[in-house]
Amino acid sequence: MSGDNQIRFGLLTCTNIVRKLSRAINLSPNATISAIATTSSIEEAKSFTKSNNFPPNTKIHISYESLLEDPDVDAVYFPIPTRLHLEWATRAARKGKHILLDKPVALNVSEFDQIVEACEVNGVQFMDGTQWMHNPRTYKIKEFVNDFESFGQIKSVHSCFSFAANDDFLKHDIRVKPGLDGLGALGDAGWYTIQAILLANDFKLPKTVTALPGCVLNDAGIVLSCGALFDWEEGISATMYCSFLGNLTMEITAIGTKGTLRVHDFVIPYRETEAAFTTSARGCVSEHKVMTELPQEACMVIEFARLVGEIKNRGAKPDGFWLSISRKTQLLVDAVKESIDSNLEPVFLSGR
Amino acid sequence: MSGDNQIRFGLLTCTNIVRKLSRAINLSPNATISAIATTSSIEEAKSFTKSNNFPPNTKIHISYESLLEDPDVDAVYFPIPTRLHLEWATRAARKGKHILLDKPVALNVSEFDQIVEACEVNGVQFMDGTQWMHNPRTYKIKEFVNDFESFGQIKSVHSCFSFAANDDFLKHDIRVKPGLDGLGALGDAGWYTIQAILLANDFKLPKTVTALPGCVLNDAGIVLSCGALFDWEEGISATMYCSFLGNLTMEITAIGTKGTLRVHDFVIPYRETEAAFTTSARGCVSEHKVMTELPQEACMVIEFARLVGEIKNRGAKPDGFWLSISRKTQLLVDAVKESIDSNLEPVFLSGR
Repeated sequence: MSGDNQIRFGLLTCTNIVRKLSRAINLSPNATISAIATTSSIEEAKSFTKSNNFPPNTKIHISYESLLEDPDVDAVYFPIPTRLHLEWATRAARKGKHILLDKPVALNVSEFDQIVEACEVNGVQFMDGTQWMHNPRTYKIKEFVNDFESFGQIKSVHSCFSFAANDDFLKHDIRVKPGLDGLGALGDAGWYTIQAILLANDFKLPKTVTALPGCVLNDAGIVLSCGALFDWEEGISATMYCSFLGNLTMEITAIGTKGTLRVHDFVIPYRETEAAFTTSARGCVSEHKVMTELPQEACMVIEFARLVGEIKNRGAKPDGFWLSISRKTQLLVDAVKESIDSNLEPVFLSGR
Repeated sequence: MSGDNQIRFGLLTCTNIVRKLSRAINLSPNATISAIATTSSIEEAKSFTKSNNFPPNTKIHISYESLLEDPDVDAVYFPIPTRLHLEWATRAARKGKHILLDKPVALNVSEFDQIVEACEVNGVQFMDGTQWMHNPRTYKIKEFVNDFESFGQIKSVHSCFSFAANDDFLKHDIRVKPGLDGLGALGDAGWYTIQAILLANDFKLPKTVTALPGCVLNDAGIVLSCGALFDWEEGISATMYCSFLGNLTMEITAIGTKGTLRVHDFVIPYRETEAAFTTSARGCVSEHKVMTELPQEACMVIEFARLVGEIKNRGAKPDGFWLSISRKTQLLVDAVKESIDSNLEPVFLSGR
């Protein structure tokens, strides 16, 4: 793709996650970096863009507002605290910028619906930044669980994502601060497990969500670890466990009537260019390896830029698929939180 | 060990599980088969003993009573419906026979306590027939989760055991009949998952047990699939899922603060002479293989016969370790059932 057709990204903040995403954009043939906004010094931003191989002509903005006014920015990546998502995503949408927004997409689904509305009114593409969903392995996994001959009818899913945060994280990270990312481990690690459970259930919402006993909160009431049960019609259920307090574990086990799926590194594959999963079906256990030319974050950027390109270059309408998955995930995150806050009562999702 | 010192087993019934156990006894240097009781024809029993390589002098009894009177029987293996355990195990104990009893050990813990009392009064050894607990791999697994340096403090365990029973099983097997094995998938597949969860928690009982939504019962009210949550002190919890309705899956995932354990075939290892498990600790994922000279059911027989031999040949007292694990498992099975029967209310175990 010629440079002229590349989708031009504006990035907010000079942080580690932007470092990772800028590498992904550089690896994506249909995307480029055109600008970055910093709220600290221009010197620091210059050094950041240089050390991360940003294009030499990357513009540096000294405020988010200024970046959103930049006509050379097609799309914005937002690695900012969840509490700021509503304000900045809706402002970006009103400026016609396409939106790649980190998870959790909002503090709750009603905030997210305002973002959705702003995207729809302004015709901009939305995607949340859950990278593993774009790994080629994920498509293979989905193919397996959707294959009635091999997997049958789904019965049970268990997914967990935990990592052992250090003391500094547990004291100072934005993910444990009520003023910033109020959903804690549930909005962070839990988001992935919930999306894995939705994926295994073909993105069908459960009927009820029940938080499990044993939830750990910090002094400010932020979730550090919790579990939940999701219940579809009779005999189809899923459990998730997410935690900042346990050793790195990233599991999906999905059991169908005919087959079983197991993934051990679903969030961040052990290797960047190869990802494995195990199936058992008809009494036979098979290890599958999926080669990936590009890291999964680049696969995500390519898919997002492709959708933006359809709008920018071909006059297409925004694609609602990824947005609908973000909304369902946020709905389930909210329901787990609501159940935690209401003494583990089940939350009925009908009509939401 | 010379033949004179071998523990002499009496077996009840000519069934597939007795076929498997008789092979295990034949492989065990400290055990032998001395008798079998059949409630069908002597001819059938003769043919069964011959085709399964029983010792030529194996006595055939035409009733359980008669086998229990046999002075050449030291120990009895009971693969009979759970509803018959109380009667026959207590009768065996009163005759001084040591007891290898299939799981679930009783219909409830109060029945089991009567068996325990009969064993204690008559000085007989008790063990339940959960074979995987005796696999050398299980000892290695236990070593890992007990190693604070590698595994840290336990945080979460998930265990599931499911198999897809066919229509004939779902209509006619004793495990789905209220008159026979009233605990269904919970007492059968669930027994293993609960023992796995106890093992990972160093056999410490949880404080509360809560059945999860989504339980499936048959028309007679027998559990065909269910899940449960076990809760220790704050931040330590476990979930289990057991089912007759899902593809064969036999998982343990245990997460500590420093390490993670994964086992994929914990109930019946894929291979008889080698069993694997995976650990991750300090950022490193390791696959462990444990070689076993004998199948796990022979390891169980050897351990049981060793304990019986201590009593018979050295005047030792019965060892209470396995009995205490059986009792804890039955207690948790009962608690899950109680929670299912009381609209998923948590069951508090304090004092039980």
